[in-house]
Amino acid sequence: MSAHNVVTVEVGLGERSYDILIGPGLIERAGEEIAKRLPKARVAIVTDEHLAAAGHLDRLRMALDKTSTASTTTVLAPGEKTKNFDALQQVVDDVIAARLERGDAVIALGGGVIGDLTGFAAGIVRRGMNFIQMPTSLLSQVDSSVGGKTGINSPRGKNLIGVFHQPKVVLADTGALDTLSPREFRAGYAEVAKYGLIDRPDFFAWLENNWQEVFSGGPARAEAIAQSCRAKADVVARDEFETGDRALLNLGHTFGHALEGATGYDSTRLVHGEGVAIGMALAYRFSARLNLASPDDASRVEAHLKAVGLPWRLSDIPGGLPDAETLLNFITQDKKVSRGALTFILTRGIGQSFIAKDVPASEVLAFLDLSLKR
Amino acid sequence: MSAHNVVTVEVGLGERSYDILIGPGLIERAGEEIAKRLPKARVAIVTDEHLAAAGHLDRLRMALDKTSTASTTTVLAPGEKTKNFDALQQVVDDVIAARLERGDAVIALGGGVIGDLTGFAAGIVRRGMNFIQMPTSLLSQVDSSVGGKTGINSPRGKNLIGVFHQPKVVLADTGALDTLSPREFRAGYAEVAKYGLIDRPDFFAWLENNWQEVFSGGPARAEAIAQSCRAKADVVARDEFETGDRALLNLGHTFGHALEGATGYDSTRLVHGEGVAIGMALAYRFSARLNLASPDDASRVEAHLKAVGLPWRLSDIPGGLPDAETLLNFITQDKKVSRGALTFILTRGIGQSFIAKDVPASEVLAFLDLSLKR
Ligand SMILES: NC(=O)c1ccc[n+]([C@@H]2O[C@H](COP(=O)([O-])OP(=O)(O)OC[C@H]3O[C@@H](n4cnc5c(N)ncnc54)[C@H](O)[C@@H]3O)[C@@H](O)[C@H]2O)c1
Ligand SMILES: NC(=O)c1ccc[n+]([C@@H]2O[C@H](COP(=O)([O-])OP(=O)(O)OC[C@H]3O[C@@H](n4cnc5c(N)ncnc54)[C@H](O)[C@@H]3O)[C@@H](O)[C@H]2O)c1
Ligand SMILES: [Zn+2]
Ligand SMILES: [Zn+2]
Repeated sequence: MSAHNVVTVEVGLGERSYDILIGPGLIERAGEEIAKRLPKARVAIVTDEHLAAAGHLDRLRMALDKTSTASTTTVLAPGEKTKNFDALQQVVDDVIAARLERGDAVIALGGGVIGDLTGFAAGIVRRGMNFIQMPTSLLSQVDSSVGGKTGINSPRGKNLIGVFHQPKVVLADTGALDTLSPREFRAGYAEVAKYGLIDRPDFFAWLENNWQEVFSGGPARAEAIAQSCRAKADVVARDEFETGDRALLNLGHTFGHALEGATGYDSTRLVHGEGVAIGMALAYRFSARLNLASPDDASRVEAHLKAVGLPWRLSDIPGGLPDAETLLNFITQDKKVSRGALTFILTRGIGQSFIAKDVPASEVLAFLDLSLKR
Repeated sequence: MSAHNVVTVEVGLGERSYDILIGPGLIERAGEEIAKRLPKARVAIVTDEHLAAAGHLDRLRMALDKTSTASTTTVLAPGEKTKNFDALQQVVDDVIAARLERGDAVIALGGGVIGDLTGFAAGIVRRGMNFIQMPTSLLSQVDSSVGGKTGINSPRGKNLIGVFHQPKVVLADTGALDTLSPREFRAGYAEVAKYGLIDRPDFFAWLENNWQEVFSGGPARAEAIAQSCRAKADVVARDEFETGDRALLNLGHTFGHALEGATGYDSTRLVHGEGVAIGMALAYRFSARLNLASPDDASRVEAHLKAVGLPWRLSDIPGGLPDAETLLNFITQDKKVSRGALTFILTRGIGQSFIAKDVPASEVLAFLDLSLKR
């Protein structure tokens, strides 16, 4: 593949700035792109069994061989449960055992799970190693690989443990998406739609008209990924450490994380992006109930999620859910809690989301109760 | 105790600047000092069994009660071995279970082990909680509590895993030192002498004349602690993330860490400050051997360490050491290795230390071999 198919989006963070490269064939070009930025670096690759089985790990190793880049590999079990302390310790041990030094790098080849875990490990070995994101799922290409949030889960809640650690470069090979399951592709699409729903109403309208082409591949897909990365890079550049605006990216995530917790992170029942899809539909419906947004906008969101085949209401989750009280408990252990008052991302309409502090827990409880019956 | 006995040293790090308060009675004043900086904060205290047994934990809890500061407590086993992944996970779990929020704080009450471990946990829970250092050993008051380096050990080397996470304030209660064992006090004194040996020849000469008063307590002790904190704060303010000058603080530590590793972190044989004492003596002797410093300066360092009762040569370590080759292996896994060449802190004389890159491993090996026979 030639380089002219590759789009570059810059994340502007002063001396921590980096490029996101988006396009086909980037795994094959990894050696060159890394050598350009980190001359003579040796690398430790972290990936999961699905990526190895799909042949992407071998593609990467061959690419690194071409530039004589020495590498070691850690292959982990796939799935959200891998974001735990044991796997963190394993990656940290492997990176240390590889005797990498300050100029070397740790590569995450995989979805958001591998990216979050590996970025965290890279952030704590020797108090911070060079880190390279090679996201292979749609979700990780449009979201988790950009912005430097890394981490693992606690039994008490998602992503409660981690650091901010920015990558040196993000190589998003759109060709890798061809081996992703349709379900995982859809789940990632929820985060694409999210950027429209946060503050880009035109992008959301474009998605309503073009989602079929995004799903089938081709220029519309790469365009949607680049747009999403731009949207995320904008927010991250404004607020690297999430002291303000960046919280907007959590649209759909407060409800979504609670649902992931309530289903025990069981991916046969719910994956992250599906939780986010339902969470966004709930955030819009909740905003309508609070007379902030029009019920028509909530219906429009629900209709689009439904059209692309994403779950959008609680009853779409197989296997049953606990009661509203229990769901609320999952929410209050979530991070977006400030001195006892609940913080939510609510909305005044399509592309008009905002950070709402002091949302009364009683309102959330009543709304969840109602939503469980829908 | 009244506030006029308290000396304040500022660590100038822009928006991450903080005060080190040094003096008697600071544990009793912890509630006020914390409330001043973090109004209404709740706290999670992390300490070890020795501190609890010596009554300092109760003193702190009573102090927090006076200001109605809610607290939870984690008491860990004392000793270097506690700086591991399991203890990290325990502290992280306890802090999360306490449901602390962004305005709340995690307190380390103890020596460098508790400080390093707790600071690391505070740095990764919710990607960074407020952190307060209450150092209780001499070593932690003059060194580990200042500068934001936190971490745990890997089986492959000391402090290989961690983050930079600056405290909001350091409360160094000099009264707490009264319950410290003489051996631990001496070990901490090695780091005090270190500041003189790095770049403050007058301070070293002052210590040669006044060490007895420093050991017996009183004004000379507080003076030595404040001088040490100033020396460290200076270096840290110049180079927060150890990309340059800060490495000078590792004088004695390359050898020292290797010795800690070679003795299996067994504190009955060697504690950190003792390793540093021997390491500094070796760094001076090695510099003399390389014709960088005068042998008289090496002898002067050895004589002072000996006078205060610190070990200064390899044969002072009980139980025997492995051969030079094995010791060198511990060194090359140490952090101060850049692209295969060995980096050492060497010296041109008392208070004239410098960072030496490209020290040939063969020279180190020959020197270690010689030193083992001394
Ligand atoms: N750090 C952030 O800012 C951020 C943002 C959003 C989400 N996240 C995190 O991202 C995670 C979800 O990401 P995800 O959906 O990518 O999860 P994932 O890593 O589990 O990937 C989903 C599944 O697809 C497989 N897969 C990935 N790429 C593939 C490919 N090219 N071919 C075949 N199979 C492939 C994986 O093995 C896995 O089974 C969550 O843990 C979430 O918390 C983080
Ligand atoms: N972060 C840094 O910049 C930095 C710098 C230097 C050293 N360190 C680390 O610090 C650690 C060594 O620190 P340390 O010597 O304080 O070790 P430590 O925490 O193990 O304390 C030494 C012993 O004294 C006990 N103790 C502490 N205060 C006491 C008191 N007031 N009364 C009675 N007993 C007390 C402890 O329980 C322990 O048994 C090492 O792990 C080293 O790597 C870190
Ligand atoms: Zn998400
Ligand atoms: Zn030290």
